[in-house]
Amino acid sequence: MESQSINNVKINVGNKYYTDLIPLTKDGFEVTREFLHRVIQILLDFLKSSNDRSSKILDFYQPEQLKEILDFDILAEPENLDQLLTDCRNTLKFQVKTGHPYYFNQLSCGLDIVSLAGEWLTAAANTNMFTYEIAPVFILMEQVTLKKMREIIGFRDGDSILAPGGAISNLYAVMTARHKMFPNYKTQGLKCLPQLVIFTSDHSHYSMKGAGMITGLGTDNVISVPCDNRGKIIPTELEKMVTEAVARGQRPFFVNCTSGTTVLGAFDPIHPLADICQKYDMWLHVDAAWGGGCLLSRKYRGLLDGIERANSVTWNPHKLMGSLLQCSTVHFKENGLLISCNMLSADYLFQQDKHYDVTYDTGDKVIQCGRHNDIFKLWLMWRSKGMTGYEKHIDHLFDMAHYMVRKLKERKDRFFLILNEPECVNVSFWYVPPGLRKMPHNKEKEIKLGQITAKLKGRMMDTGMLMIGYQPLGDTPNFFRAIISNPGVKEEDVDHMLNELERLGYDL
Amino acid sequence: MESQSINNVKINVGNKYYTDLIPLTKDGFEVTREFLHRVIQILLDFLKSSNDRSSKILDFYQPEQLKEILDFDILAEPENLDQLLTDCRNTLKFQVKTGHPYYFNQLSCGLDIVSLAGEWLTAAANTNMFTYEIAPVFILMEQVTLKKMREIIGFRDGDSILAPGGAISNLYAVMTARHKMFPNYKTQGLKCLPQLVIFTSDHSHYSMKGAGMITGLGTDNVISVPCDNRGKIIPTELEKMVTEAVARGQRPFFVNCTSGTTVLGAFDPIHPLADICQKYDMWLHVDAAWGGGCLLSRKYRGLLDGIERANSVTWNPHKLMGSLLQCSTVHFKENGLLISCNMLSADYLFQQDKHYDVTYDTGDKVIQCGRHNDIFKLWLMWRSKGMTGYEKHIDHLFDMAHYMVRKLKERKDRFFLILNEPECVNVSFWYVPPGLRKMPHNKEKEIKLGQITAKLKGRMMDTGMLMIGYQPLGDTPNFFRAIISNPGVKEEDVDHMLNELERLGYDL
Repeated sequence: MESQSINNVKINVGNKYYTDLIPLTKDGFEVTREFLHRVIQILLDFLKSSNDRSSKILDFYQPEQLKEILDFDILAEPENLDQLLTDCRNTLKFQVKTGHPYYFNQLSCGLDIVSLAGEWLTAAANTNMFTYEIAPVFILMEQVTLKKMREIIGFRDGDSILAPGGAISNLYAVMTARHKMFPNYKTQGLKCLPQLVIFTSDHSHYSMKGAGMITGLGTDNVISVPCDNRGKIIPTELEKMVTEAVARGQRPFFVNCTSGTTVLGAFDPIHPLADICQKYDMWLHVDAAWGGGCLLSRKYRGLLDGIERANSVTWNPHKLMGSLLQCSTVHFKENGLLISCNMLSADYLFQQDKHYDVTYDTGDKVIQCGRHNDIFKLWLMWRSKGMTGYEKHIDHLFDMAHYMVRKLKERKDRFFLILNEPECVNVSFWYVPPGLRKMPHNKEKEIKLGQITAKLKGRMMDTGMLMIGYQPLGDTPNFFRAIISNPGVKEEDVDHMLNELERLGYDL
Repeated sequence: MESQSINNVKINVGNKYYTDLIPLTKDGFEVTREFLHRVIQILLDFLKSSNDRSSKILDFYQPEQLKEILDFDILAEPENLDQLLTDCRNTLKFQVKTGHPYYFNQLSCGLDIVSLAGEWLTAAANTNMFTYEIAPVFILMEQVTLKKMREIIGFRDGDSILAPGGAISNLYAVMTARHKMFPNYKTQGLKCLPQLVIFTSDHSHYSMKGAGMITGLGTDNVISVPCDNRGKIIPTELEKMVTEAVARGQRPFFVNCTSGTTVLGAFDPIHPLADICQKYDMWLHVDAAWGGGCLLSRKYRGLLDGIERANSVTWNPHKLMGSLLQCSTVHFKENGLLISCNMLSADYLFQQDKHYDVTYDTGDKVIQCGRHNDIFKLWLMWRSKGMTGYEKHIDHLFDMAHYMVRKLKERKDRFFLILNEPECVNVSFWYVPPGLRKMPHNKEKEIKLGQITAKLKGRMMDTGMLMIGYQPLGDTPNFFRAIISNPGVKEEDVDHMLNELERLGYDL
């Protein structure tokens, strides 16, 4: 039994080259197995240290230094298999451990083992998602999983697709809305249409501006609507701006409602926006790339109340749901739109006289031609958790964020929470060093805290025991935004975060 | 030493759930290791059978049947680790083995082991490519590798990016050209511009129409230029159509030149197109998604003679170069364009006061926000081969295609080669069954051969010992297009292909 004797065959990969592997050598399987097992050993070591709280998240070097240390050159002659293993080890040695429990830096933190296994299988299957012919299982799996997601959203029918990231999912929404409302644009282009206008909050993701730029509307025609002090769009402002645009002769056609803003994690109120969209004949898109995962929790799905009224929804399982990167989905209430919007009928790929039902082929629904298989890593992970497990996963992330807020308040002389209580698992705060603790909170202090934030981040990177992102927001100078999206984070990790900030920032 | 004793710890994963894995259980590493080793065993079995010429490429079931056989449901309760392993096995059991030497079905055939190892590491590193902060090694690796590719193209300076597939790479080219030539469009949109027109050959990839649709030009404004009987664009026709467009008041601004068409593998002549572009102030894009790999061979790079005159080039290493899916690159002669075209300056992600040189961050260059790491699988593979190994790889693919053409000609009563000799590794042909062998070649016969082609493909799928794609092209009915892009293909595999066609098609 091979599975029992993976180490019985010992091969010194040091003398071997890629030509000794399958398929280049018919009997290269033993070398292949040994090589891949050694790679896996390196990856297991990485996983182990990623979960070891005493190990560093990163060993930071400036770009110019790292170029000196590592050898990136592609030479005339091949490297042997031993050198490739060294390359793997070196790459991971200087890579940031995004699965480390002290990594609070991005919306996607953590490394789910089942999803990882799914991605390894995906790589071995190495297929393209355009046809049932070459991806039968994955195509069906995608159908079932995306249907389930639409049911969770509250769409009775509809259609969905996986896209390479939330920005492209949002682009799909804009294109599909434009197609539904102005079918002529596909052939004749924008010059035959009135000036179309998109509305989105000034806290929304920059990909809405991006969609305006890509589709040729122009970024000036993606209009920013002001938010209240919690980062939520103000519906009355939206309505005012819509009527102003109409008065200018423009055609408002698309409203983006964010469920979970990137920085503050705010949720725009869906119902009032849906009412305005209905009144002015506009498409309602909900960008729940970040907050979509809350739909899996009875406790938190109320944050997206009204989402079933949307025409389209972006939801990224690689964020709150913790699947590996990338896994982004976009869902449409109306079936048939994706295909009529994007179909270009490439005969060479999507023949209609195949010996199976070609409506299973997805290639004509997408703006990519080849499409990476992003479903298996999500499906397998979801199987591993079931609906109940995912609910616990989401609830735990919120528990930890709430714990963090409590702890920040307990140490309120040292930390200042930005704006209100967070709605999502984004916790925004300043670290206040001793020298500023007695100073009243005003703009001048905020500017100083903003400078301290950037310096403190630099120290974090250099010491490597904590990573938290920071950014300015509107008039507010730099502040930290800790994200709790790694389900392995425990209360003591939050304690570590605050202690480490104090340790590193005390003398700033 | 862990690496010596991976099987010493025996854990029955059957009683375990995802909650027994890291990071959910601090001491879950042993279970994690055992689970992942079992996954790897399943993948190794798949790799072995993918390279076993006596095993089937696929076990075909109709979609409705496969839905009955497989259980895709996501339940309320979690599945245990044993069930997840069964899920992995079942998924691969019904998946097409795209690495099988008898799989000639798509432009991407084969499964490179080093690139696979690279993708496994990529998954374990699970990071996003927007900043040096969280992907230091990969960002530098991308810079070095893409610079090397630009040097191979013949660009002295310039800039490049990896995109999720060739269609998106081509979209980048259109957007960048539009930005360079009409910088106002970014903010004001297309309505402030004359009607822009793109030219591309009628054998080019449908993503050019797609780019016209997405960017709002309209597919009517992506004009198809006729090809000669080898599938190469006719430059005089292009020039005529450009002047006609100008006469209609349109603004021709972009010419797409295909280096390796999807069906016939034809190479458009670059120099004459570059001359026309110069004369009429148009952007020259070379879509070498398919043929780009030929640049690595001294023998075949002449097919892309003049490519250094292009303004932009698409080149997909996941095709001729055999890297895992997806790996697509787009290159620009002029540096700075990608960033000025796509920058939206998201403060939250691309802060300018970081403690390293933020010009290394790539996030502002792309239309995605999160971007999958597609560089490591390519870089490691390229290291494994070196320049000399890649040259041999490309030359071998051509040798096999030429061998196939010779064999088709030897059996010329049974096979008919479409049009002329192939320029690339696409070999287009009809299988001619005994009943039609005496019939003179005319349209009526072609129609019959087209029907036979589709039937024969159905038989291939059902028996599972051969896969070749087919399509119609213009007025020509269905014909087979065999692609030799798996470097493991040997002469006897080509012999098998022809014998199998005869065996399956004899009574048609």
